[in-house]
Amino acid sequence: MRMPIATRYADYDTKAHANNAVYLTWFEMARAEAWVHHLGGSADFPFIVAEATVKYVSEAMIGQPLEIQMTTTEVRTKAWVWSYVITDAGDGRVVAEGRTVQVMYDYERHATMRIPDTLRAKLPTL
Amino acid sequence: MRMPIATRYADYDTKAHANNAVYLTWFEMARAEAWVHHLGGSADFPFIVAEATVKYVSEAMIGQPLEIQMTTTEVRTKAWVWSYVITDAGDGRVVAEGRTVQVMYDYERHATMRIPDTLRAKLPTL
Amino acid sequence: MRMPIATRYADYDTKAHANNAVYLTWFEMARAEAWVHHLGGSADFPFIVAEATVKYVSEAMIGQPLEIQMTTTEVRTKAWVWSYVITDAGDGRVVAEGRTVQVMYDYERHATMRIPDTLRAKLPTL
Amino acid sequence: MRMPIATRYADYDTKAHANNAVYLTWFEMARAEAWVHHLGGSADFPFIVAEATVKYVSEAMIGQPLEIQMTTTEVRTKAWVWSYVITDAGDGRVVAEGRTVQVMYDYERHATMRIPDTLRAKLPTL
Repeated sequence: MRMPIATRYADYDTKAHANNAVYLTWFEMARAEAWVHHLGGSADFPFIVAEATVKYVSEAMIGQPLEIQMTTTEVRTKAWVWSYVITDAGDGRVVAEGRTVQVMYDYERHATMRIPDTLRAKLPTL
Repeated sequence: MRMPIATRYADYDTKAHANNAVYLTWFEMARAEAWVHHLGGSADFPFIVAEATVKYVSEAMIGQPLEIQMTTTEVRTKAWVWSYVITDAGDGRVVAEGRTVQVMYDYERHATMRIPDTLRAKLPTL
Repeated sequence: MRMPIATRYADYDTKAHANNAVYLTWFEMARAEAWVHHLGGSADFPFIVAEATVKYVSEAMIGQPLEIQMTTTEVRTKAWVWSYVITDAGDGRVVAEGRTVQVMYDYERHATMRIPDTLRAKLPTL
Repeated sequence: MRMPIATRYADYDTKAHANNAVYLTWFEMARAEAWVHHLGGSADFPFIVAEATVKYVSEAMIGQPLEIQMTTTEVRTKAWVWSYVITDAGDGRVVAEGRTVQVMYDYERHATMRIPDTLRAKLPTL
């Protein structure tokens, strides 16, 4: 799944480049788009993030249009991996890469759970 | 000017409604859209915000699509007022109203300045 | 109540001064301190913010130590007003002033409620 | 270096646990504390973050007091690694672990640079 990133003025720091923490928020925006619009899930995610990694490849300066691509790169019993590439939509330059591990979670029973079959079928299509 | 708000999961708090501070960020997103795309300005704003007010009218819960309308409601010599109405794009309900006062600022001379004539002409068209 | 503000690098924008929206977060930090440590309440606030106003008086630049003073300036049946003054802890200069209106809220019944008597007694002591 | 984390109400999400992106901000707060108060540097960091990783070990719920420990775990020619452990200050439970890679940067020449000798001498003392 690929989408433009709706950046915000407050995402940028004193050097006019994107703050390092905001990349995880941008990853989260991609997850929201995928989860709600591609996978038909709730905006109030039923999974937890167990791990996150970001490699900052080149600077994202204020005013530069950004895109994010998110792909399912691994599906386990209860968890799956999403990988991200953020690019400058103008020149195609890679800005950052990263991955997050999600674990399916039952918030009522407070326990991890197996990925439901319908979700398992759809995850690789992202 | 009217636009949908690209909300983020992290905008919502422990009660699943939008945090009070994020409304000012949403106002800022409307300013960015207006400034860059309607007024032809830089993403790195050449004005300062001198005052901001928000009235929280009804709850904005996670998953509800929001829209923001921004209008120029006053133009002075160096400053102008933008007024905002945020509505639920589904049922039209007003979620919040607010206003901000902007002052034109010369960041090189560190001084306020008159609103340039070209901007003065365009401000009322928002 | 008066306290230092634990500012964050990400609170500052491309001009190295504090982003306008973060002042509402700083007000919220003062509320949390007062609510939990002075009034003995839960970190998960049982009230809603109905209104917020900020006047940005002078610039808060990165690296400047800030303090916030919060005072109860009005108590009504269900609502009360907190007023804030943010100062530079170095030179005493006023950086911003503001106020927020809080309404007591019963999150189980989804309804506003009267301010409990014990809280009413303590509010003016802040 | 070890310090309490000044958490904020807005750091917590709809499930009342800390949002995944805010951990990178907490890491940044530890860097600011170390950089300014232990290493004598400027609040406007002269380095860039090249990589960041977080492992979310257990939930950080609103109201729980948190501490962060930051240690220099590697020093290269231009870059160094800081490792972090966030714990619940009440029961000592590990909440998260992570690491970031910093690269010394000359913002005037827009180029990476060698770690200055005085900094190189102090880094391992954190």
